[in-house]
Amino acid sequence: MTAINVQSHLTYEVALPTSFAFSVVAARTSRQSVSDERIDVTPEAELSLVTYDSDTRQLLRLAAEPGRLELSYRARVVVDPRITDPASLAEVPFAEIPADVMPYLNPSRYCESDKLGDFAARHFGYLQPGHDRVQSISNWVNGNLLYAPGSTDATSSTTDVLLQRAGVCRDFAHVAISLCRALGIPARYVSGYGVGVEPQDFHGFFEAYLGGDWYLFDPTGMTSGTGLVRVGSGRDAADAPFATLVGQAMLVDKVVEVTVEDPTVEDPTDGPIEGDSIATSIA
Amino acid sequence: MTAINVQSHLTYEVALPTSFAFSVVAARTSRQSVSDERIDVTPEAELSLVTYDSDTRQLLRLAAEPGRLELSYRARVVVDPRITDPASLAEVPFAEIPADVMPYLNPSRYCESDKLGDFAARHFGYLQPGHDRVQSISNWVNGNLLYAPGSTDATSSTTDVLLQRAGVCRDFAHVAISLCRALGIPARYVSGYGVGVEPQDFHGFFEAYLGGDWYLFDPTGMTSGTGLVRVGSGRDAADAPFATLVGQAMLVDKVVEVTVEDPTVEDPTDGPIEGDSIATSIA
Amino acid sequence: MTAINVQSHLTYEVALPTSFAFSVVAARTSRQSVSDERIDVTPEAELSLVTYDSDTRQLLRLAAEPGRLELSYRARVVVDPRITDPASLAEVPFAEIPADVMPYLNPSRYCESDKLGDFAARHFGYLQPGHDRVQSISNWVNGNLLYAPGSTDATSSTTDVLLQRAGVCRDFAHVAISLCRALGIPARYVSGYGVGVEPQDFHGFFEAYLGGDWYLFDPTGMTSGTGLVRVGSGRDAADAPFATLVGQAMLVDKVVEVTVEDPTVEDPTDGPIEGDSIATSIA
Amino acid sequence: MTAINVQSHLTYEVALPTSFAFSVVAARTSRQSVSDERIDVTPEAELSLVTYDSDTRQLLRLAAEPGRLELSYRARVVVDPRITDPASLAEVPFAEIPADVMPYLNPSRYCESDKLGDFAARHFGYLQPGHDRVQSISNWVNGNLLYAPGSTDATSSTTDVLLQRAGVCRDFAHVAISLCRALGIPARYVSGYGVGVEPQDFHGFFEAYLGGDWYLFDPTGMTSGTGLVRVGSGRDAADAPFATLVGQAMLVDKVVEVTVEDPTVEDPTDGPIEGDSIATSIA
Repeated sequence: MTAINVQSHLTYEVALPTSFAFSVVAARTSRQSVSDERIDVTPEAELSLVTYDSDTRQLLRLAAEPGRLELSYRARVVVDPRITDPASLAEVPFAEIPADVMPYLNPSRYCESDKLGDFAARHFGYLQPGHDRVQSISNWVNGNLLYAPGSTDATSSTTDVLLQRAGVCRDFAHVAISLCRALGIPARYVSGYGVGVEPQDFHGFFEAYLGGDWYLFDPTGMTSGTGLVRVGSGRDAADAPFATLVGQAMLVDKVVEVTVEDPTVEDPTDGPIEGDSIATSIA
Repeated sequence: MTAINVQSHLTYEVALPTSFAFSVVAARTSRQSVSDERIDVTPEAELSLVTYDSDTRQLLRLAAEPGRLELSYRARVVVDPRITDPASLAEVPFAEIPADVMPYLNPSRYCESDKLGDFAARHFGYLQPGHDRVQSISNWVNGNLLYAPGSTDATSSTTDVLLQRAGVCRDFAHVAISLCRALGIPARYVSGYGVGVEPQDFHGFFEAYLGGDWYLFDPTGMTSGTGLVRVGSGRDAADAPFATLVGQAMLVDKVVEVTVEDPTVEDPTDGPIEGDSIATSIA
Repeated sequence: MTAINVQSHLTYEVALPTSFAFSVVAARTSRQSVSDERIDVTPEAELSLVTYDSDTRQLLRLAAEPGRLELSYRARVVVDPRITDPASLAEVPFAEIPADVMPYLNPSRYCESDKLGDFAARHFGYLQPGHDRVQSISNWVNGNLLYAPGSTDATSSTTDVLLQRAGVCRDFAHVAISLCRALGIPARYVSGYGVGVEPQDFHGFFEAYLGGDWYLFDPTGMTSGTGLVRVGSGRDAADAPFATLVGQAMLVDKVVEVTVEDPTVEDPTDGPIEGDSIATSIA
Repeated sequence: MTAINVQSHLTYEVALPTSFAFSVVAARTSRQSVSDERIDVTPEAELSLVTYDSDTRQLLRLAAEPGRLELSYRARVVVDPRITDPASLAEVPFAEIPADVMPYLNPSRYCESDKLGDFAARHFGYLQPGHDRVQSISNWVNGNLLYAPGSTDATSSTTDVLLQRAGVCRDFAHVAISLCRALGIPARYVSGYGVGVEPQDFHGFFEAYLGGDWYLFDPTGMTSGTGLVRVGSGRDAADAPFATLVGQAMLVDKVVEVTVEDPTVEDPTDGPIEGDSIATSIA
């Protein structure tokens, strides 16, 4: 169990009346509880907080008039991940994948898994199926991609990123997700906050469906499984941006802070991702 | 209300033990009722019929051993679409789009709406928002794309199709969906059966979210709103193939037959898609 | 015969020692004579003017130290195009295309003619071969692409431009060249100066190989065949940029001026490109 | 000096009258002399042999009527490459690259060097410029691409090949050429015959412009510099196919045989490409 304090502060210059939908609020799941939560908007605006995705996810909506808009979010999130022995986590045979999990086998905008069948088979097909194989994929992404802010943009998909072998956290996650799907392993994108992300920012990572549950991986290697706070999840980053808007507004500042409440408490799961890491799930 | 008899017959040569998931069974919705349904598999196999997507959709699963496999499906489907005056159907402002509809604004594997913002604005941005605008998009696709079986394959996305200006029903639907999303109109792919599809085959069309409900469009112009039987829906065709399989098998024959039970009964909604067509919904 | 005064003025901020190669000097051909030519560089630098491409083309080279660099070019160019009846210009059968013209049938970086076979055949395959068919291609490009500065960049190729249906002069030329090559008509890119280009800038157009010679077309419709001054030509714009450089420098100003010396003299070839325009060649 | 016997035998089923242009005849250069040459065509046809590219290259043309067409070519080619110490071969500064070599710095259809600037700089930018750097590029291609016939087709370019990390000889050459150009090193594609190519086929390799001349590299590692016979060269494989045709004909058989005349003679340059290999030039 880890208590994590998260904060995000977004500042926009709004040019025309604009409708915003923010995904910055920590999700409510059986393994993640939220307290001391506070949302501040300047100037004051009517907020609506819509709950969806089986009541786990909070969409924050507001309408803004021209001028400066500031949104501050803070919360204390206690994450109590299920910790499982990786060796016990098998890949689920196609015939047993639940119907509502099957879409996470399909290619998506940023994860063209249908184009990577040969590549994935050649690089990972010979590995023993299971959690370790997904960990190998995550490690391969970590070792073969350069973490380079500015090297990609909102249109960059897995094929672009694999070509230039560089990207940021969302790109790392996209490549790993694509490789999993190409091997028949359901995988999905998760947005949230991560302890240890440097420079501090919103974070993107992924989950693979193993042994009947969703397990966390961070191909950037910057966080451990117990340092991740879930906001939303989806097919890929298209489903989980921190903000979408219709109107006209420019993001002029973004500050994110994530701290472990009592870092002196020993955390058996802390540390960089390794082949022998434990398996954690907060879904 | 229209009674439609649908049949599909698939024959595979199975080379290795193979796990199949078929999406050929008519959906159960409040506007579509199914009777006289029959599923035959030769050789006999254990079938599982999984219900999902709010209990509307049926996934048919089976395991096949090497050899010939035949799957026959037939049903009588009574479609009772909600018929609405198109003029009354407004586009829904972003702030009022329900959270579970919002993913249908996002780009997907075959619908890279994020790349078509300028194009869509230039061609359709000046039109009055509402059902007529979506109908204009559907008509434009119909008029500017050549219907050419063999011109596209499973990797062809909207950008490929728009470039060559040719494709089949799924490509027509993808282009229209992409253009809608680029304009802020939620749109989704629907797979099913269509009266009048020539040559007879499974059909792909789309729905746009207008006035708080999903309305049907067929950019191929081959069917009317009341001649469509829903099987499944999703972000794009990746979510609604008639079959997915893991193992090794080759489709060697596919026969689809769709007939209106009593075509002499006058159907006010019958006819090609036109600018003044009525709006129909079977969601 | 037309006398055209051309001027170009380029200003760079040079950050590191930089080696420049400029293609701004009017070509010397049997149909284009150059006088009153003047090249000024500030600060003074040693210039080398390299003649190549059968002695028609001038490459201007210089090395610049950090600081501001200004290059001014001016010349009086008398263009005496060969004027031919379009109806007499046939496409050249493949077996008779000279070996040194054959590369202009091949796809190039910005002209992926190999991907446009079906599209070109569908749109222009039914037309009578000859100058009129190329004119139809040029007119089609003019009518179906939006002239939109800023809509493309240095990586945009024909497939990108055809997708978004927008671009600038080089993109217009690339699309037309690609369509010609896809139909078996050799075509090449020409860079230069054009009377009537609005806003004034360097210009890009193309030539098709017809009846044993190269004939001019401007798909932007901004110039006539006798208002074009050739600087260089190549497979596509990659071969004919106005400047290439190694080092580090930023273009901070670019001014181009092109004027007809005595516009009151009646020019039978003046006017926008039309289906019944005359055929002109300055190669 | 090496004497190499080359043979190629092509069989077509011609469906409609077809005009062929073959590039199978060994080039005549100061370092490659051809004797005992024989061209046979069945049924007999009028051949034209066009000499171009500074009289080094032979284009073989013929017109075929419907029916079977067989073309046999054989020759004895004595290759006397210039052998140079790699350590003495510097990259040529941009300012000193001759104007007619400059096009080989430009991106081309299959070599999108403009998209690989960051990638090339990251992987090879830190290496000492010169022959060894190009050898490192060639070795990297050899070590990071899988040689897999069937993995690519005529539309596959460097970006496609780098993505899937697999291809055949032409793809290996394209990737290496693109990386060279991205670093400012002129590079061109060479088609021909290679001793040791397995399975025997026409071969594709590349030359880089170093120290004022063109030097050979074979990223497949299948041949040594003295086992290569030049047929043609160009920007990329688009410029040097073994056959182009207009009409309708299907290649039904292709047999290539390349043997060293006296393999017992010790060849100091024989052996796989290594970092310490000698530099050879036959341009």
